[in-house]
Amino acid sequence: MSAENKQYLAGIAGYAGYSGADLERILEGHPHVRPVLLDHREDSSEVALLNHPARRQHLPCTSEAVREAGLSVVFLATPPEVSMELAPAMISAGVKVIDLSGAFRLRTPERYQRWYKQTHTQPALLASAAYGLPELCRESIPRASLISNPGCFPTSANLAIRPLLQADVVERGAGIVCDAKSGASGAGKKPSLKNSFCEVQENLSAYAVLEHRHVPEILMVSGLEESELSFTTQLLPVDRGILETIYFRAKNLASVDELLAIYAGQYASEPFVRVYPAGKLPDLRRVNRTNFCDIGAVFDAPSGRGVVVVAIDNLGKGAAGQAVQNMNLALGLPETAGLL
Amino acid sequence: MSAENKQYLAGIAGYAGYSGADLERILEGHPHVRPVLLDHREDSSEVALLNHPARRQHLPCTSEAVREAGLSVVFLATPPEVSMELAPAMISAGVKVIDLSGAFRLRTPERYQRWYKQTHTQPALLASAAYGLPELCRESIPRASLISNPGCFPTSANLAIRPLLQADVVERGAGIVCDAKSGASGAGKKPSLKNSFCEVQENLSAYAVLEHRHVPEILMVSGLEESELSFTTQLLPVDRGILETIYFRAKNLASVDELLAIYAGQYASEPFVRVYPAGKLPDLRRVNRTNFCDIGAVFDAPSGRGVVVVAIDNLGKGAAGQAVQNMNLALGLPETAGLL
Amino acid sequence: MSAENKQYLAGIAGYAGYSGADLERILEGHPHVRPVLLDHREDSSEVALLNHPARRQHLPCTSEAVREAGLSVVFLATPPEVSMELAPAMISAGVKVIDLSGAFRLRTPERYQRWYKQTHTQPALLASAAYGLPELCRESIPRASLISNPGCFPTSANLAIRPLLQADVVERGAGIVCDAKSGASGAGKKPSLKNSFCEVQENLSAYAVLEHRHVPEILMVSGLEESELSFTTQLLPVDRGILETIYFRAKNLASVDELLAIYAGQYASEPFVRVYPAGKLPDLRRVNRTNFCDIGAVFDAPSGRGVVVVAIDNLGKGAAGQAVQNMNLALGLPETAGLL
Amino acid sequence: MSAENKQYLAGIAGYAGYSGADLERILEGHPHVRPVLLDHREDSSEVALLNHPARRQHLPCTSEAVREAGLSVVFLATPPEVSMELAPAMISAGVKVIDLSGAFRLRTPERYQRWYKQTHTQPALLASAAYGLPELCRESIPRASLISNPGCFPTSANLAIRPLLQADVVERGAGIVCDAKSGASGAGKKPSLKNSFCEVQENLSAYAVLEHRHVPEILMVSGLEESELSFTTQLLPVDRGILETIYFRAKNLASVDELLAIYAGQYASEPFVRVYPAGKLPDLRRVNRTNFCDIGAVFDAPSGRGVVVVAIDNLGKGAAGQAVQNMNLALGLPETAGLL
Repeated sequence: MSAENKQYLAGIAGYAGYSGADLERILEGHPHVRPVLLDHREDSSEVALLNHPARRQHLPCTSEAVREAGLSVVFLATPPEVSMELAPAMISAGVKVIDLSGAFRLRTPERYQRWYKQTHTQPALLASAAYGLPELCRESIPRASLISNPGCFPTSANLAIRPLLQADVVERGAGIVCDAKSGASGAGKKPSLKNSFCEVQENLSAYAVLEHRHVPEILMVSGLEESELSFTTQLLPVDRGILETIYFRAKNLASVDELLAIYAGQYASEPFVRVYPAGKLPDLRRVNRTNFCDIGAVFDAPSGRGVVVVAIDNLGKGAAGQAVQNMNLALGLPETAGLL
Repeated sequence: MSAENKQYLAGIAGYAGYSGADLERILEGHPHVRPVLLDHREDSSEVALLNHPARRQHLPCTSEAVREAGLSVVFLATPPEVSMELAPAMISAGVKVIDLSGAFRLRTPERYQRWYKQTHTQPALLASAAYGLPELCRESIPRASLISNPGCFPTSANLAIRPLLQADVVERGAGIVCDAKSGASGAGKKPSLKNSFCEVQENLSAYAVLEHRHVPEILMVSGLEESELSFTTQLLPVDRGILETIYFRAKNLASVDELLAIYAGQYASEPFVRVYPAGKLPDLRRVNRTNFCDIGAVFDAPSGRGVVVVAIDNLGKGAAGQAVQNMNLALGLPETAGLL
Repeated sequence: MSAENKQYLAGIAGYAGYSGADLERILEGHPHVRPVLLDHREDSSEVALLNHPARRQHLPCTSEAVREAGLSVVFLATPPEVSMELAPAMISAGVKVIDLSGAFRLRTPERYQRWYKQTHTQPALLASAAYGLPELCRESIPRASLISNPGCFPTSANLAIRPLLQADVVERGAGIVCDAKSGASGAGKKPSLKNSFCEVQENLSAYAVLEHRHVPEILMVSGLEESELSFTTQLLPVDRGILETIYFRAKNLASVDELLAIYAGQYASEPFVRVYPAGKLPDLRRVNRTNFCDIGAVFDAPSGRGVVVVAIDNLGKGAAGQAVQNMNLALGLPETAGLL
Repeated sequence: MSAENKQYLAGIAGYAGYSGADLERILEGHPHVRPVLLDHREDSSEVALLNHPARRQHLPCTSEAVREAGLSVVFLATPPEVSMELAPAMISAGVKVIDLSGAFRLRTPERYQRWYKQTHTQPALLASAAYGLPELCRESIPRASLISNPGCFPTSANLAIRPLLQADVVERGAGIVCDAKSGASGAGKKPSLKNSFCEVQENLSAYAVLEHRHVPEILMVSGLEESELSFTTQLLPVDRGILETIYFRAKNLASVDELLAIYAGQYASEPFVRVYPAGKLPDLRRVNRTNFCDIGAVFDAPSGRGVVVVAIDNLGKGAAGQAVQNMNLALGLPETAGLL
């Protein structure tokens, strides 16, 4: 029986959050995988129930329950400290673990400590975790028992920046600017004054300027040095979506068509990256509720000023969509199953 | 009788637009000036009436009517081609003219032609127009018969950029990035698909990348060369407000406190510029419906990466508020009258 | 070969509008039907292209082209005057026509004239058109060559009101109030000041109070007299969604459970109507981008005050979703195909 | 020295909340009153400081501090349980107390217990509190030492409903429906999932249907019986604003002009009530950041169906604006001082 005809079960821990809810929604329409909700501590609280009037199969989030129920994959849509707690038990249950938190994205406990301001409790797992950005690191994903789903900002930033560096068209001495804007769902579901409607509506605010915890992921994948990257995030009054405007000074580049050809070449066989023709730029609405990453560019040849605009849905390609893409790779399913 | 005890009349042409409506609202609360609405062509249309259920004094927008009624000032909150048509007549009526369009901001008809894609019909007026950015060019405003109110993006960009260049702390070879975000009222009131609710809501889109018509104003006032500035605008799903995030590579700068001290020194006696302490950054809500320009900064000394965040209300300090500030200067009134 | 294994082609006229775009999006995921875009006059304009960067099969909207291409169904997502023009040609081509406009919803040209303020140019078609509200009028839909897709407001209003009247629990002398609120996409894509972002954002406005053209559809299906129904619409600052709050004075009703049991009984076998338990009420987010109609209720037995809250997506169950449901019925496909 | 030339000090307890912030903003522009911030418990917390980068005079919220500083008025913009705690001390300090909570709006501790689900700890103060709705109960306000500022929903509901009942044009047997919609600031500043951006944006939800704690205020002032009023509230995705659509069955009423004449007569000398001509209806934007209450109506004479639309800013006429109007009355100042 081929992988494609088999039916798999995928557990979701943290299903009450925004990424978890999107995982459930995507898997509902997946032809080969059925979602199971994994209860962990307060998951049966009012918050959880608010979005689950129609109930589906629940299991406790333990290695016994997961093994006995025959789950093939477990998604951890949980905060990093919870993911560090749950991952070893899930791995020991023999399931593929796909973690959506930042717990296993960086390569050393020291880097984790610096950017997340807490001690890493599972340093032994860091080396074995595959970084789940298929378009740039696909090889290691199928065999890994632990897949670390990339951060939302690094997903789009790396898809836009790494091809430029590999093509050697960036004057690195001038630095690269990545000005990121994100919808409020990126901050999670925990209520706080910062994500209250009356504070976000009719507002735009910058935060974590030059010190966002997603910076080291961008450096790790793109190959930039920290001193070369100015990365800033801004909170948009929208529910979902990330748009990043990336500025660089070019070398070895004669036209916007040459610039776009770099992306077209890099992503020619990628189903989820759409490169726009010259004169068109991505926006949030076109990627909303999809797993697409849209890329467009403007270039002024005489001065060498380059601008790349890249957009994703922070809960799609930036979280749940990409996690399902990783699951497809891990289970040997078509990479686009359930995602188009 | 001192200027402050006198009562003045100020005409508003284009009162049915968003800037015009804000002018009327601000002047309603002004202690020394009363607004008069100047009808020009379709100003008595349904659009105009929609926002004017309570009617006030109207005059035709002619030099006779303006002179006979004893107006002291006329605001042109009209498109540039209408401002070019109306300005000579109003000047000949002996009133101070404050134009909110882009018609008289650039210094030569050639530059106007390049950026506005139309011929300038009043080139003789370009030399005499004062550029009405009081914090940086206050001297020429009181005596001018024609004051050109700055564009919204250049107002905040220049207030943030010029002090840095004057203090010689910018590595100009690396260029400056100004990533601007603006509310939908910046596009004016004329209906189009681009400012329809369903296209703007839950969206963010970049436009006029590297070629916005406000670029030459930033160059003119800041002293930057075009090749040094990467300026991009993005349409926010908010009614009003501009936030610009400005990136530069520093020289001669040791700390964020030194960076903020440049602004604090420059604007020590300015009532409408608020410099934030280190650790705080401006946002749209704090400047909404005010004439303030808020400035904050982040600086990484080891790498020299500098980020300045500047916010204004595009209809306040970016249009109607600054126009009233210019009117106060032109009439010899306290600069803050009606604006705090 | 059963209907379910066959592949059908469905044409969409007016694909550039919001309902048309949603039809295309839904049909993209439909297991048995593939969309074809029908070009009619300005459909190849900039507006159309804006939302169609990826191009699909186009045909001219003529009876020859439709017949030769072997289309089974044509959706008219066009204004009523265009639908009246296109419907006869499409019917003559032998395809099932599903019209999303108001052209064929009322039973007589006189009623059309009164509510739509224009002459009906195809009165002969009125009698043969099936009213496509499957949950209340399913029988006539499969055989009809012309299906008139209901208005968005009447869809939810009738699903909520008719069961109450049939169960005879309404004191009709006191009248029924239906207070409707709708997102801006309900007004269509044609730009106007009324649907400009800056006019809709941070606003709520009532319009067409007691005289909305959807009133006669509610009367026709529910059985109410015009004098019994107070129907008001309000424009919400949201993209999509309708919520109606319906007020009545009850008779023969002892509890909220009895009230909810009326709906539960009526819709027991309906896949797209979800009746909420006592204590829970629908909202827009839960029906957003679905074909569901959610119904909840509150009842005060001592006073007989009843309140029913009903929610749909105006572009889903209120337009494109319901049109696909009607197509499924017309083609003999499972009613939920492509809709869950 | 007349009241108008004197300068008064007004204390604000609860200044960190939305009503408190609006009180401070309004008093900043008041010609005769200067605001002082009263610190009570967590008022110096991060939340408070977030909106107070520029600091002004602070005092502890004690009767000694208030007396020594010579305050004339104290606003309690605090939850009802805090208002019950603070009011006696403030009254004993000899200042006029204006309470914006629901603590002193109802006439008996039993009614308070029923609707607020908590015991009233200051029942002795209930009888002496003046209900501060000037347009309908102006007489008792100037002499009262405790003024209870009305709820936001009852303010607009009573201004719209009571004149109809007094004019005896309502068929009371059919009941009155008041369908209210409110912006999110009405729920206060305390973060919760219900007022999180991602839950409110693109949503509309009904709550407290038939059981909102503002119901007894509407009954008390309008003269309706509970069984006659169906009152429902809905949470809008806007920051501020209330719009209520009120439905009734008329008697003794021949036309919409007669209906509007009732309001025009009632409010002829009221500066803050604007009655719209037939054919025009209020919306939120026109009352946003004002103390106005706008009223419009539609009437179908043959059937007797009447619809009244009324709009206020929930933080303006619905809270801080009306509180300042009450303060003006209490201090003998012009009623509109600081409010136009």
